Amino acid sequence: MTTVLKLGGSVVTDKSTPETVDEDRLDAAVAAIANAAAEGRAAAGGARAGGGPSLVVVHGGGSFGHHNAEKHGVSDTAGTRDAGAVFEIHDAMRRLNDAVVTRLQDAGVPALPVHPLSAAARDADDGLSLPLDSTATMLSEGFVPVLHGDVVVHADAGATIVSGDELVTTLARGLDADRVGLCSTVPGVLDADDEVIPEITAFEDVAAVLGGSETTDVTGGMAAKVRALLELGAPAHVFGPDALDAFLAGDDAGTVIRG
Amino acid sequence: MTTVLKLGGSVVTDKSTPETVDEDRLDAAVAAIANAAAEGRAAAGGARAGGGPSLVVVHGGGSFGHHNAEKHGVSDTAGTRDAGAVFEIHDAMRRLNDAVVTRLQDAGVPALPVHPLSAAARDADDGLSLPLDSTATMLSEGFVPVLHGDVVVHADAGATIVSGDELVTTLARGLDADRVGLCSTVPGVLDADDEVIPEITAFEDVAAVLGGSETTDVTGGMAAKVRALLELGAPAHVFGPDALDAFLAGDDAGTVIRG
Repeated sequence: MTTVLKLGGSVVTDKSTPETVDEDRLDAAVAAIANAAAEGRAAAGGARAGGGPSLVVVHGGGSFGHHNAEKHGVSDTAGTRDAGAVFEIHDAMRRLNDAVVTRLQDAGVPALPVHPLSAAARDADDGLSLPLDSTATMLSEGFVPVLHGDVVVHADAGATIVSGDELVTTLARGLDADRVGLCSTVPGVLDADDEVIPEITAFEDVAAVLGGSETTDVTGGMAAKVRALLELGAPAHVFGPDALDAFLAGDDAGTVIRG
Repeated sequence: MTTVLKLGGSVVTDKSTPETVDEDRLDAAVAAIANAAAEGRAAAGGARAGGGPSLVVVHGGGSFGHHNAEKHGVSDTAGTRDAGAVFEIHDAMRRLNDAVVTRLQDAGVPALPVHPLSAAARDADDGLSLPLDSTATMLSEGFVPVLHGDVVVHADAGATIVSGDELVTTLARGLDADRVGLCSTVPGVLDADDEVIPEITAFEDVAAVLGGSETTDVTGGMAAKVRALLELGAPAHVFGPDALDAFLAGDDAGTVIRG
């Protein structure tokens, strides 16, 4: 049972202030993960390595990543060959990752960092390759790999940004994940009346509301996100911080997207 | 033309004092690399990406890695499942790597960090897999990847140490390198009279002197190192800091090992 959980940049950072962790929200998310990990180990009959369910955590960049990427004019398509700029963006994301990893460790979760710049690359057609040797072995050894939006080297473009969302779909496919969760500050995919849509099984059913909805901006392209999640082989849950406990307990949370 | 250069832990750190960079030696090595990179770009007709020869740098752990690994009882075969211990060793090596990368960048070398923990893994038979997607794309985009001895996850063992030397041979094979250089504080492989042996083409020729020589201890197993280098498809040079300029200029330096 492998779960990929994304903690959005708005959950782990204060997006309004550069390079600031949202202590309260991060602490609450860490507590939920620690609680679920302890229950998983208990259900599996002890605290041995590999005994519990496998969890991969991905977090966004929030006020660490976006701030620095914008400063250097780097996006997922606009690259840079300035090694100093690449390092500055990467280093900011590493510092946020360190904060997430050490808080998880302090709560008893055997979290370890995985920095995409060290493993991933994009080819000249923008395709992302993310070798999973390290991440998969961490899982089989009972660790919790924690990845993050990062800068990655990109053939013919220098280096570009890889978002947490892109990592989530790449990991879910590569690890053959059973469940995917995307925790941000919105409680789910919203309809025209701002009510959470419980389930999406086809893009046509929500195309009208996603096309013109305000949520398009809030979450960085909900329509594209829903399309990508519909193509996964695993159900994906889009939910807010209050539903993290329920998602990690195996319950439905927010909007469930089943392609 | 791809070159893999190892800077030994004794070159970049003060091995007698925990977590201390050897500023003078590191500055001298950085200056040699920057000088060779500038000449390579000039020879290739400009500073465009991919224009010069490709260089991969690997550095050892010195007083950053060994200190922390010993503290936690972790070696290349003795593993740990303590995520806090893994992170502490890794974090120390990252700090040393940051020092090397930023000094290289300050000298005009487009260096970028590659952390083995994020990419590599050992299987249950201790075999190391190190996916090179990121490193190879860095090279083709004109960056200088800088790897380091690190802790890596290890099937059935938690996490163990990967040395700079093991990374060098893995990189040389995986990148089909043309030249390999190992720069430490000894001027080469020494004979019974402590003279540098100019060339080694077969282990039998040096077995007697390496078996009982003091250099076995000084460099962490010179006999095993020579055996591994003889099996590479590229010539390997073992030399001291004074010969780094010559090696990077394409000249023979110290002992040349050709298998």
